[in-house]
Amino acid sequence: MPLATTEPVADFSLSDIQAAAARIDGVVRCTPLLESARLNDRIGGRLLVKAECLQHTGSFKFRGAYNRLAAMDPETRGRGILAYSSGNHAQGVARAAQMFGVPATIIMPRDAPAMKQRNTAEYGATIVLYDRHGESREAIGRQIAADQGLTLVKPYDDPLIMAGQGTSGLECARQCAALDAVPDLALAPTGGGGLMAGFSTAMKAAFPDLRLFAVEPEGYDDTARSLQSGTRVANTATPASICDAIMTPEPGELTFPVNQRTLAGGLTVSDGEVRKAMADAFAELKIVIEPGGCVALAAVLAGKLPVAGRTVVVVASGGNVDPALFADILAQAT
Amino acid sequence: MPLATTEPVADFSLSDIQAAAARIDGVVRCTPLLESARLNDRIGGRLLVKAECLQHTGSFKFRGAYNRLAAMDPETRGRGILAYSSGNHAQGVARAAQMFGVPATIIMPRDAPAMKQRNTAEYGATIVLYDRHGESREAIGRQIAADQGLTLVKPYDDPLIMAGQGTSGLECARQCAALDAVPDLALAPTGGGGLMAGFSTAMKAAFPDLRLFAVEPEGYDDTARSLQSGTRVANTATPASICDAIMTPEPGELTFPVNQRTLAGGLTVSDGEVRKAMADAFAELKIVIEPGGCVALAAVLAGKLPVAGRTVVVVASGGNVDPALFADILAQAT
Repeated sequence: MPLATTEPVADFSLSDIQAAAARIDGVVRCTPLLESARLNDRIGGRLLVKAECLQHTGSFKFRGAYNRLAAMDPETRGRGILAYSSGNHAQGVARAAQMFGVPATIIMPRDAPAMKQRNTAEYGATIVLYDRHGESREAIGRQIAADQGLTLVKPYDDPLIMAGQGTSGLECARQCAALDAVPDLALAPTGGGGLMAGFSTAMKAAFPDLRLFAVEPEGYDDTARSLQSGTRVANTATPASICDAIMTPEPGELTFPVNQRTLAGGLTVSDGEVRKAMADAFAELKIVIEPGGCVALAAVLAGKLPVAGRTVVVVASGGNVDPALFADILAQAT
Repeated sequence: MPLATTEPVADFSLSDIQAAAARIDGVVRCTPLLESARLNDRIGGRLLVKAECLQHTGSFKFRGAYNRLAAMDPETRGRGILAYSSGNHAQGVARAAQMFGVPATIIMPRDAPAMKQRNTAEYGATIVLYDRHGESREAIGRQIAADQGLTLVKPYDDPLIMAGQGTSGLECARQCAALDAVPDLALAPTGGGGLMAGFSTAMKAAFPDLRLFAVEPEGYDDTARSLQSGTRVANTATPASICDAIMTPEPGELTFPVNQRTLAGGLTVSDGEVRKAMADAFAELKIVIEPGGCVALAAVLAGKLPVAGRTVVVVASGGNVDPALFADILAQAT
């Protein structure tokens, strides 16, 4: 039984995202585009925050997962779903499978945040833990899929996943227009690049002059370096980071060509900059953003780009952070 | 110069709220109505959370303040605004005044949360501190208003304030309809009763069978007792509470007759129940709710009403909580 469920596609375009939007309509939440007068004052520009942490399951991942399952033929879907994920894709897939009434098995690293493991289990999925540094999740997944006849739902290298994530960009473009805002810059957290591929395609279609930037944690700047070198390059080490959601080894095979077309470049932020931005989001926006979901906001607030006089959109991509870490971040910020 | 700016009105109705909605359109944010599959499972019903903590200035108070200022004649408004508030009305009035380019003076208790004092100052208001237990904010306000020719914007006993707050109910009713949800129960935090008067009037107009409950902190159950006795009664003591936003002495003169007409009763919650609900909102909804803003959610999660099989709306009315307290609450919940 083959593990890959999709072949590389020649193109990925707005129409894929529009089809996804029709498929997920009424199920996926239109998340608010938030703004704070005081944050605007601080950066001397206009900052619009697409709060995907308020999406069902606490991250944008539900969009792609639901779109992927909705597009499957019911018989295949009924045999069950398999996914590997550090936590947000896990929860998105588990919840989507629960809604379709089909079994899901999720392969998660043993060091994934406790909240993400618990939530995934509570959405009814069977969890298989593996060692992030020693074992191959792909090998484990291949075995389970073959044994049980499950269909793998990849975290990003799948046009239906990219299209689902891209519905956040369609919404965001509509919300910008409703605010009479024409964004000059847009930044999104980037791991494998699925969110960015979809988001950037939708936003670029609405705002052709928009300059988009991938944001990654220090040590995991594979997309930034790949964009510079013009070819996919991997990270050479796996340093510690609080940004568990986007500690990916290299850009996706399908996502990278899209991002190469749409992005102006990549930026990196430190754990310290992320922690400060999480505390700012708490104080000024009243939303809970997890570390990996907060890198784009962190890049703007840490001054990684000149934003004075400009309108900047950032995606706050997830909010699944353990309370102890969040408490520690707030206590330090006080 | 008279301090009172409004006279008691014989009636307050949906049309006042509709007029407010037209006045604040495009300025006030339509806050999301959030839902969590896991919270629904926990209560065995459907829980819809109107996230007013995501409103500009971090609470519903901006609605009423902006409506009030927008309805003033420009010359009077230009002379300046005066308000007294423990913090959320302060921020709402300060920000509305800033948007209209008019000066604001805010009288705040010395023990108001640091975040609320700082934010109010940052919106450009002049702050006058007073001792909550020794001095009369009304007397201080009367003196300043007379000296400087300012117009008092009351926190709740004003039909324009009640109408502004009520726009949250108009939105909520529309959002329920979009979800095909017919709420059986609705709960909102209640201090002076301005939010509740507006919210309940709008919701009751859309859902005539809806049963609405005011929720108050232990020791500040003046509305609950007033509803029971049929006349306004005051709190007899001022015990410590973390719910600073709704530690009001008695129901409003104008708000109470409205709430008497629309409400089914009142409920109280303890600080411990509020702390648990704040941690649940962090984990399951990814929003920051302040103690006083979280009493309605706390009442549902603590089982103060039978909700199994029912659809329940709660208002999360504000999110202005000091990070040290929020960190302490999360650390204890871990």
